[in-house]
Amino acid sequence: MPTSKRLRINGPRLQRNLEDLARFGAIAGGGVCRPAFGRADKEARDFLEDRMRALGLAIHIDSIGNLFGIRNGRESKPVVLCGSHADTVGTGGRFDGSVGVLGGLEVLETLNEAGVATRHPLGVVSFVNEEGARFTPDMMGSLVFRGDLSVEAARRMVGIDGTTVGGNIDENCYAGPSTPGELPVRCYVELHIEQGPVLERDNRTIGVVEGVQGIKWISFTLRGATAHAGAMPIHLRHDAAYVAGATIQYARQLSLQVDGQRATVGSLVLSPNLVNVVAEEARLTVDLRNADPGRLSAAEERLSLFVNDIAGTEGVRVEREVRVDVAPVMFDPSMVDAVENAAKTLGYSYMRMISGAGHDAQVMAGVCPAAMIFVPSRGGISHNVAEYSAPEHIEAGANVLLHTLLRFAD
Amino acid sequence: MPTSKRLRINGPRLQRNLEDLARFGAIAGGGVCRPAFGRADKEARDFLEDRMRALGLAIHIDSIGNLFGIRNGRESKPVVLCGSHADTVGTGGRFDGSVGVLGGLEVLETLNEAGVATRHPLGVVSFVNEEGARFTPDMMGSLVFRGDLSVEAARRMVGIDGTTVGGNIDENCYAGPSTPGELPVRCYVELHIEQGPVLERDNRTIGVVEGVQGIKWISFTLRGATAHAGAMPIHLRHDAAYVAGATIQYARQLSLQVDGQRATVGSLVLSPNLVNVVAEEARLTVDLRNADPGRLSAAEERLSLFVNDIAGTEGVRVEREVRVDVAPVMFDPSMVDAVENAAKTLGYSYMRMISGAGHDAQVMAGVCPAAMIFVPSRGGISHNVAEYSAPEHIEAGANVLLHTLLRFAD
Repeated sequence: MPTSKRLRINGPRLQRNLEDLARFGAIAGGGVCRPAFGRADKEARDFLEDRMRALGLAIHIDSIGNLFGIRNGRESKPVVLCGSHADTVGTGGRFDGSVGVLGGLEVLETLNEAGVATRHPLGVVSFVNEEGARFTPDMMGSLVFRGDLSVEAARRMVGIDGTTVGGNIDENCYAGPSTPGELPVRCYVELHIEQGPVLERDNRTIGVVEGVQGIKWISFTLRGATAHAGAMPIHLRHDAAYVAGATIQYARQLSLQVDGQRATVGSLVLSPNLVNVVAEEARLTVDLRNADPGRLSAAEERLSLFVNDIAGTEGVRVEREVRVDVAPVMFDPSMVDAVENAAKTLGYSYMRMISGAGHDAQVMAGVCPAAMIFVPSRGGISHNVAEYSAPEHIEAGANVLLHTLLRFAD
Repeated sequence: MPTSKRLRINGPRLQRNLEDLARFGAIAGGGVCRPAFGRADKEARDFLEDRMRALGLAIHIDSIGNLFGIRNGRESKPVVLCGSHADTVGTGGRFDGSVGVLGGLEVLETLNEAGVATRHPLGVVSFVNEEGARFTPDMMGSLVFRGDLSVEAARRMVGIDGTTVGGNIDENCYAGPSTPGELPVRCYVELHIEQGPVLERDNRTIGVVEGVQGIKWISFTLRGATAHAGAMPIHLRHDAAYVAGATIQYARQLSLQVDGQRATVGSLVLSPNLVNVVAEEARLTVDLRNADPGRLSAAEERLSLFVNDIAGTEGVRVEREVRVDVAPVMFDPSMVDAVENAAKTLGYSYMRMISGAGHDAQVMAGVCPAAMIFVPSRGGISHNVAEYSAPEHIEAGANVLLHTLLRFAD
């Protein structure tokens, strides 16, 4: 067995680095508030840049603020890249994003210590504004890197606090001299917490992520007519709440009938919302997710047909708007196999799975072959100060990352 | 045919009186804002008292403010009473309540003109605070008259503006010298607009009201758990919105399966109410109505079983509160027959029906035999400035009132 096969990352050191990074924007309950392009986010990026310099990495910061640390390879080849993001939602946890960036740095530190040289350069990236919680779109840094969003357009985005991305970049000195996307990348691997309960429930340590679900957000505005709950016979009603209730039920039916489908009504507002008045209006959203683009479209179509049909029978008018439409992404099969092989070789329990949440890796999949490694989230909780992933799981995830990267770096 | 059989009320005069009364508290769009015990309500009562005096009626005002005008009979017998109320909801119409009070006064004026004497005295009442829009409970005046609510307890009620019933009574000089309930009443007949669409849809002029639906308001608080709409598999969810949606559907099912049942979910609030987050909490109400007390209780029981069952399967906790519980009232069959006979004799199209809304007549049914006469509401609209009933329908209703009262006055 060559030396590199026996290599393992240093789990306690990775934990210390996670603790150090969590100090930037720390909030009560063990959480982190590090909205993109803010002061705490910049301090976190400075911390990461310092860590990269300490590891002897070459620093690249592009004009949107993405931070790359590159470890030279024996040859001047495209970079084998890993990473994630350091920004958080308003009341986020200390693992979402951070595990991928610091896990990547831990891999490079492990290689440094062991004196392992690779043919390809190895790199770690911290993309800006993955969350999109302060400025839309989410995955902004990777979208700019891919060229789907210009730096100029991104800079013009106005956030929930009325400031612009550009204003924040200038104020907090985010911009670097590199042109986004100029760095040649061979492949991209992202270690991330699952943000769901599947691995925990199945008692698996590693999620071999085959792809990311596509997302459609459909808004329905249903307009009926108010009426007296006592005096108006049922068959004469135009009850917007009734159609909304039927839509909630149908969303569940879609989830159970369409393979791989998730359909959620999370938001519903009735008007006038009074006990004894038939609802005149209902505004609701349906969040549809599926890893299969055909099934996702079919689910959307069936949903719309259902709503139109039942609303028509009830005499309720329907307005429909597609607010989000992100296609599913399937990762490169050889990359996914490499992640699986690494997990298997290392002796970790694992399962293939689909990501329910969006990640920079799905954007990078349009640049180069990409893959993801998930580790369990306790109780499936994420975007919450209670977010937690066990040290041994994070360590295992970083070891899988190490050996997946080595596979493509040589 | 005796003279009295040929008697008809004066429709145009009744319309003029309705227009005069609608001036007190008039608001834009032809509506009326005359909350109970307020200044406009008192001015309306003063107007009615003046009309009563002009008709030579004896005035009785009791200590809660109910106004009675009594026309002497040949004998000193219990009063054959009609009437309704003059208060309105915040943005009410000019017909709800007013038609019954002014219709009654029109009947007495018609008898005066024709010189018809009756054996029993005839009376018209304007009960205070039927709507309950400013001070609960609704039907306060008739409840005090019946003795179910003491004047002292009623005076202590605090309204939505923070003032008390007692304070308003004193400030606007509402109280009269009579003791509530001391007036002996033989029977009570209330002419009212339907406030629903049934008569209009069936193209009938007169509703012969057999009773008033019972009402139960059930509040459900459903507590599940938030989760990521993408990352959380369906079978692991505790989705409060799903249980709420199923409850809305079940309410409709109850309405269709249980004879005479109306079940309405008019109010529903989700939390956190976000597109991509499974709802942690749903608060909803179900308004149940039925004229049959056994069926109403059975519907409530079936509903609660259903909610507990589906919530149990979903892992959602249920809190249930009965907020309103008013028993159904069936009117005296001989009174109902008398209304029907009057409508038939007068040649009006009519139908027997159940009132979906509450009325003073259902309270008076506990004091004496009672009945109601409905006239059509255009589009079923009520508690709205657009409330409208056609002059010919109001005239017909007052004629039915006239002949029903004559039947019991002799």
